[in-house]
Amino acid sequence: MAADKLRAQGVTVIDLGVGEPDFSTPEHIKDAAKRALDENFTKYTTSAGILPLRQAVCDYINSNFGSDYTPDQCCITVGGKQAIFSGVVSLINPSDDVLLEKPCWVSFPEIVNFAEGRNVMIDTEPTDFHLTAEMVKAAITPKSKLLIINSPSNPTGRVIDPTEFRRIIEVCVEHGLWVISDECYLQFVYPPHRVNSAAALPPELRSRVLISGSLSKTYAMTGWRVGFTLGAREWVTEILKIQSQSATMAASIAQKAAIAALTESQEPVKEMLAEYRRRAEWFVPALNEIPGIQCSQPEGAFYAFPNIKDLMKNCGLATSKEAADLLLHKYGVVCTDGGAFGAEGYLRLSYANSMESLREAVKRIQQMAADSG
Amino acid sequence: MAADKLRAQGVTVIDLGVGEPDFSTPEHIKDAAKRALDENFTKYTTSAGILPLRQAVCDYINSNFGSDYTPDQCCITVGGKQAIFSGVVSLINPSDDVLLEKPCWVSFPEIVNFAEGRNVMIDTEPTDFHLTAEMVKAAITPKSKLLIINSPSNPTGRVIDPTEFRRIIEVCVEHGLWVISDECYLQFVYPPHRVNSAAALPPELRSRVLISGSLSKTYAMTGWRVGFTLGAREWVTEILKIQSQSATMAASIAQKAAIAALTESQEPVKEMLAEYRRRAEWFVPALNEIPGIQCSQPEGAFYAFPNIKDLMKNCGLATSKEAADLLLHKYGVVCTDGGAFGAEGYLRLSYANSMESLREAVKRIQQMAADSG
Repeated sequence: MAADKLRAQGVTVIDLGVGEPDFSTPEHIKDAAKRALDENFTKYTTSAGILPLRQAVCDYINSNFGSDYTPDQCCITVGGKQAIFSGVVSLINPSDDVLLEKPCWVSFPEIVNFAEGRNVMIDTEPTDFHLTAEMVKAAITPKSKLLIINSPSNPTGRVIDPTEFRRIIEVCVEHGLWVISDECYLQFVYPPHRVNSAAALPPELRSRVLISGSLSKTYAMTGWRVGFTLGAREWVTEILKIQSQSATMAASIAQKAAIAALTESQEPVKEMLAEYRRRAEWFVPALNEIPGIQCSQPEGAFYAFPNIKDLMKNCGLATSKEAADLLLHKYGVVCTDGGAFGAEGYLRLSYANSMESLREAVKRIQQMAADSG
Repeated sequence: MAADKLRAQGVTVIDLGVGEPDFSTPEHIKDAAKRALDENFTKYTTSAGILPLRQAVCDYINSNFGSDYTPDQCCITVGGKQAIFSGVVSLINPSDDVLLEKPCWVSFPEIVNFAEGRNVMIDTEPTDFHLTAEMVKAAITPKSKLLIINSPSNPTGRVIDPTEFRRIIEVCVEHGLWVISDECYLQFVYPPHRVNSAAALPPELRSRVLISGSLSKTYAMTGWRVGFTLGAREWVTEILKIQSQSATMAASIAQKAAIAALTESQEPVKEMLAEYRRRAEWFVPALNEIPGIQCSQPEGAFYAFPNIKDLMKNCGLATSKEAADLLLHKYGVVCTDGGAFGAEGYLRLSYANSMESLREAVKRIQQMAADSG
């Protein structure tokens, strides 16, 4: 809103606020949608999604991670958020505790609130935002029922390494918890970090985990609203009940497009990943040269998450919200303040943006730092 | 499932079970979707839906019914069911009473159950399935918070005339109830009955009503998942909160297609209505010639809802479920038993089917009646 107002005043606003690829959906995926239109594939499908798509999801995950999911363990959802919503709502009763990382994606605690669960936050700032099994264990309460993890993470860009990931799930299973693994940034991992999924866990651990997947980021398909869940049949069945009494299903044409995305060329994904990496490798060092900013190199996703505490002090700002507001109103850069995710003193800057925009953003943040001196 | 099994055995199954137009989405609507693809309109939109679509919904309803809805009173939903889901969930707390017609669409009581409300059923069989203000008044309890009405009705095909409709809302408003008016069959009304919407009510009544609209039936767009709510800002704001934490929004391409549907030629709607009417005028008298069946002429929607109590007696069947099962397994006709909607002794037969299929269905039901003799 404020950004639109500035634009109306003729200000060139640089928007690093939105968590969305700046790429368009690849052509071959759009072509599949057009074929679906030509074939009049415009009617209801089963609520779980058409079988060839559920099979494609299983094949995609099984072939990458050695799992053995079958289509009856898969529900196609209206985007990844719907998968998490239904996963939480189907499991959580009032007064159940849900463990979350702090900071985390804003929708996790909101969805838990909707289900009338209680959010138990695990502060990851002391480990530079790396969740460990020790931290999870220490946070478990008698009422804990669910852990939601998100690696690569929005907003921090951190990746949990496969060994620690397994330990975390082991701790949860030992204590009778269920786990939702939000893997919407699955493929966007920068070496030496490795792509990893809960699907790679041994079956006795995997059976307690609901994978929430999404085509939105991986294939630049945010507008299409296609995600999926993979997990224990009983859990997926409950999710399906909620879906069949609400959104019914993902759009029929989007389902056909999703098959093309999962089964045809994966080159666009590699190209996007290479581009995100190239941007991060320029952007984050450039941020670190600005006085008062320290920023770790992202391990995955497409967010820089700089510590701006010194910059805030230099500028006389009390909160990262104030910093984000100043950055917008005086310098025309949109970003999201860390406080929104539970990490005061940080900003989230999306580099799913052109190099030109990133260069301009750095220049403007430099100016903000210079003006404070 | 059973129908698929029969098909695999070589049986020609006639499916009058699904509540879905047999027409494909009109070409100009599909063309709008293709243009959206070419323009790479494939990213997130606002959760409420793009402003031109919300404006188109308001214009469409306001111009037809003399109302003055504005886009901030409109939320584009992932189909009509999502509108009802969010409408109920945002309003109903555990132990609130929700008044429903019996029979009614199966999702209404399921959604109320999800919200932990209590379903208070108003039996409309004594008035040949016409809901009246008297009946609503008699059903109101101290805990009543909401009435859901659906005219034209699925499954009965009945239409509430505008005068009675207004009286019903007056009773609700007098008693402090809210109303959801499910208008997904809005345009499919057969003369002398008239198209009517809650939008036609005076403002002081309209302000207590949430209209749930859908493009699914009107434009043969079931697969696209586009519906809408129109109502009090406060209610729509709550609905928007739920949507933004679950499905996020209707698919971007589907939103563009929906603008074309609402603002371009309405000829396809008239053609579909004329065709449904032609079919009903043949189908229902033909059903009435079968011994043991009485069927009122539908007033709207595209369902025949015959009373088969005598046929059941003749066949020695205890429930309409048994009748539907026999009809499927022995005669290869799929339909929905009235018991599923709360009306034992009836069947719901969709005539959103070719005349050829309807003729064959009648022949087979005749055979079932003959075999019972």
